[in-house]
Amino acid sequence: MIPVTYYPVKTQELVVKNRERIKGKPYAHFFREEIFLHDDVLPFLKSPMDPAKALRPGDELNRLLEPGYQDAENGYCDLGKGTMYVASLTRFPRCTPEMFRWWFWWHSVEAERYTLWFPYNHVSAIAQNRDVLARPGLEDWQRYVENTHTVSEFIGPERSDIFIHFVDPSEFCIDTRALSSANIHGHACGHVSLQRPGIRAVSMVHLIRDTDDGFELRSRYWLGDRIELEIAGRSLNITKPAHSLGITEHVMGPGKAYEQFLHDQIEFTHLASILPDLYSEFGPGKNSA
Amino acid sequence: MIPVTYYPVKTQELVVKNRERIKGKPYAHFFREEIFLHDDVLPFLKSPMDPAKALRPGDELNRLLEPGYQDAENGYCDLGKGTMYVASLTRFPRCTPEMFRWWFWWHSVEAERYTLWFPYNHVSAIAQNRDVLARPGLEDWQRYVENTHTVSEFIGPERSDIFIHFVDPSEFCIDTRALSSANIHGHACGHVSLQRPGIRAVSMVHLIRDTDDGFELRSRYWLGDRIELEIAGRSLNITKPAHSLGITEHVMGPGKAYEQFLHDQIEFTHLASILPDLYSEFGPGKNSA
Repeated sequence: MIPVTYYPVKTQELVVKNRERIKGKPYAHFFREEIFLHDDVLPFLKSPMDPAKALRPGDELNRLLEPGYQDAENGYCDLGKGTMYVASLTRFPRCTPEMFRWWFWWHSVEAERYTLWFPYNHVSAIAQNRDVLARPGLEDWQRYVENTHTVSEFIGPERSDIFIHFVDPSEFCIDTRALSSANIHGHACGHVSLQRPGIRAVSMVHLIRDTDDGFELRSRYWLGDRIELEIAGRSLNITKPAHSLGITEHVMGPGKAYEQFLHDQIEFTHLASILPDLYSEFGPGKNSA
Repeated sequence: MIPVTYYPVKTQELVVKNRERIKGKPYAHFFREEIFLHDDVLPFLKSPMDPAKALRPGDELNRLLEPGYQDAENGYCDLGKGTMYVASLTRFPRCTPEMFRWWFWWHSVEAERYTLWFPYNHVSAIAQNRDVLARPGLEDWQRYVENTHTVSEFIGPERSDIFIHFVDPSEFCIDTRALSSANIHGHACGHVSLQRPGIRAVSMVHLIRDTDDGFELRSRYWLGDRIELEIAGRSLNITKPAHSLGITEHVMGPGKAYEQFLHDQIEFTHLASILPDLYSEFGPGKNSA
């Protein structure tokens, strides 16, 4: 593991605030500011991947259910026509799918929990449907799938205020009946919208797969693949005009994809380092919700 | 040493161009793309320094001639009133002051040489007065002091097009008669101006001091300390109005100081790693000019 060497000034200011905010919380001892990357990810942080190795949205995503690995499990690139791509693989030794599914709703109960995940960059993630967080008898996934998180975080030096609407992987054409036989026992897939202006802008897929010592997370992001303007509760697909005007490249060029890749690597590498002990202390039956 | 983990996309594009440009140059084997930081610098990259420990422009700079070290030899901060500060110490084991003084003019002969210094971020540095580069019998310092370099480089993710006018350290109130007894046998001090708009914007001080195994470079930058508008060959001091309107904070906030600090650390740590062998191969008497 190598320490992260770049800390944008606004994230340096945020970690100081987060350090204060979390004091007194029962999980404050999991607020750990040392952040790392795996050595073998470094080459992918130094140049873009070959777009020919990217998965396109749609049926191609089922290739993530094949045994083994894709040609590019890590990287970022410009797919052309206004869409940027990110692939990211992170390892979770000592972790179980139960921990992952639990984390994806548990962190959305109060903002401070979200800061554990990436102390420098995370501000707040709050679930909009609060009822399902505490209702007895639900599966973990039922507490976040079809829920929407209101999220603020820094992606690189810039603050991003978004909504993440979590959905079943089938919405991204993934054959969910085949997940289990592919050793995939957890997912967090969603539509990401900017809050201002209210536009749906990013597709996000997280699938976790069993490994010998825990699981591995395979993340995919398509930035600008489908642009929908949300007006008065209706959704207007403006992908074609947005792409032809070059709006998505302007707002979400390769730099954004690079930052998203780096962010994903850091936050999930960090989460993997705290998740087993956090779950042991605050997981089901520990009165944590 | 730890590898640098952040490579802004435009610098990833630049290193590819630089790699091509340098092919065929006799010094191409010194184009080395692995870049590092010293482990002990990491804490200073994670939070700003205390401004009370900064040196102010003027007579205070003579404290750099005192034995030992300042309270803050590494860091960046906002000094208030529109001035940002950077302090940076880098080590040059196996290096001599002769090598440093030679480097400061030799790199300005052709653009490709400048890319050796920071392959990801350096575009070009060309001396305006070409006569003094090749004229026989001059000391190394006479080939860059009172010369101006036209420089393009990336400072963080943003390209910076500047002029660096090198001057005698006495212009920054440094007592040059006392340098030698302070074991300081090399300097590169200058006024940095933006090319567009043409404004003098930054004070830069580099002093090198003998150590047991080579020398150490102590760099200081004051961003926005003195703003001078250059119009029709005249220089108009607009520091006060620029500061009171908050222009310098806007153009050169703490983020710029942070990037300058990180840039200085990377480029000089990298230069230190190639300088002895580069000098041995291309230094005086090697027909390199």
